[in-house]
Amino acid sequence: MKMIIAIVQDKDSNRLSNQFIEQNIRATKLSTTGGFLRSGNTTFLIGIEDDRVQEVMDLIKETSHTRDQFMTPPVNMDVSMDQTASYPVEVTVGGATCFVLPVEAFQQF
Amino acid sequence: MKMIIAIVQDKDSNRLSNQFIEQNIRATKLSTTGGFLRSGNTTFLIGIEDDRVQEVMDLIKETSHTRDQFMTPPVNMDVSMDQTASYPVEVTVGGATCFVLPVEAFQQF
Amino acid sequence: MKMIIAIVQDKDSNRLSNQFIEQNIRATKLSTTGGFLRSGNTTFLIGIEDDRVQEVMDLIKETSHTRDQFMTPPVNMDVSMDQTASYPVEVTVGGATCFVLPVEAFQQF
Ligand code: NI
Ligand code: NI
Ligand code: NI
Repeated sequence: MKMIIAIVQDKDSNRLSNQFIEQNIRATKLSTTGGFLRSGNTTFLIGIEDDRVQEVMDLIKETSHTRDQFMTPPVNMDVSMDQTASYPVEVTVGGATCFVLPVEAFQQF
Repeated sequence: MKMIIAIVQDKDSNRLSNQFIEQNIRATKLSTTGGFLRSGNTTFLIGIEDDRVQEVMDLIKETSHTRDQFMTPPVNMDVSMDQTASYPVEVTVGGATCFVLPVEAFQQF
Repeated sequence: MKMIIAIVQDKDSNRLSNQFIEQNIRATKLSTTGGFLRSGNTTFLIGIEDDRVQEVMDLIKETSHTRDQFMTPPVNMDVSMDQTASYPVEVTVGGATCFVLPVEAFQQF
């Protein structure tokens, strides 16, 4: 048994939760802040058998890895603004940090 | 020293907190969601000396184990409903998942 | 790599967050309650290279250790009260509890 502590961006956390449920991976979700200068993030505590650690890591990577996205910034109401401000811009979203911790004992009651 | 991470149902968490205080067991409470498809749950982080691990596990088991309970469902206001709907029904409540993690160092300032 | 779990008083948590950012230490903040009969506390999860563990512990100690402080209690509006009630009194604030856990693997995506 291992304990995986995974910190992902809020925007990826629902998708990851759903993946965990679908794959029958037991994860507990903590609401967290700070870290990495990023605003909102979510921490998952995942208890998992040794031979499924890689599967969980692959799932987190697939769902939450850093990627570039085009976003249209909100329209600026200030008429004096440069019109280019509302064109789509490329931003980096996502990213996950994972720690695998040893577990000495595991019990369910 | 060990770190016990215990996930219990919200409805058992106050009773467990009180038990920890009474037995002089230092526990920190995190508000958590998800996991096991169950709605609200509470995660406790418990730092404990090696020779008290079993005592803590016994306490969690006693306070939070899965058990069947009779519950009277809320009365349904729809007069056309089958009257049997307000008879007590048996439901399963409680349940705890515990991980014991090794601790390399412990310090208080 | 180690995982440091540090529990500090709420009143010290912002100062500690700022120190972590300044020293480029990646910490995630959990909102926690209970433990030690103290009301509000904050738990930090800090993933750190082995050779920086002592640096993090020193920072937590410096920022959050138990110390005595003089506080002026709020003025009591009841005119019949003893006037000495609004003199400064010495109270103990702060305090940190730190656990260092081994980490078997660490990955960022
Ligand atoms: Ni991709
Ligand atoms: Ni029982
Ligand atoms: Ni000092």
